[in-house]
Amino acid sequence: MSQAADETLSEFRRSIDNIDAALIYMLAERFKITQKIGIYKKTKRMPPADPDREKEQIARLRVLAKAAELEPEFAEKFLNFIVTEVIRNHERIRDTK
Amino acid sequence: MSQAADETLSEFRRSIDNIDAALIYMLAERFKITQKIGIYKKTKRMPPADPDREKEQIARLRVLAKAAELEPEFAEKFLNFIVTEVIRNHERIRDTK
Repeated sequence: MSQAADETLSEFRRSIDNIDAALIYMLAERFKITQKIGIYKKTKRMPPADPDREKEQIARLRVLAKAAELEPEFAEKFLNFIVTEVIRNHERIRDTK
Repeated sequence: MSQAADETLSEFRRSIDNIDAALIYMLAERFKITQKIGIYKKTKRMPPADPDREKEQIARLRVLAKAAELEPEFAEKFLNFIVTEVIRNHERIRDTK
């Protein structure tokens, strides 16, 4: 039987699909804010990255991950993935005339 | 002035922190489900990865991203990041005696 035809698997996947939609909409909101931050930092001539802030974010997300029963290592990798993208956007904004 | 002392930036960051908490809790739920899927696939001897399913997920998330004003390329990268982690977990479950 193909995986798609398995009803148990399909039910799990419908829940995953709902969660993924929520994640995408939440990420869209997050990027709207970081877009504003990028423009703000440019006007204030602030550097795109802020290592102190990132350290705080990682420490906080690791605590939240433990409370949520998510691997703290994954939460940290996730934040790094997002922040890399954000800094790339900030640099793009900074370098736009 | 340090970035932390800038009130405008702090306000943006408090919103980011709220969104990140929501993301972490949502990801925790997602991994609870994929954990169940991993165990289910093991009992049914199904392979950890399902390329057809992944293609469908990417296509769907790109559409949702556009509706949410998020770069579809980012949504795709995000899904790949998550799926890589999930498949690693499924393999771990499969290889556990």
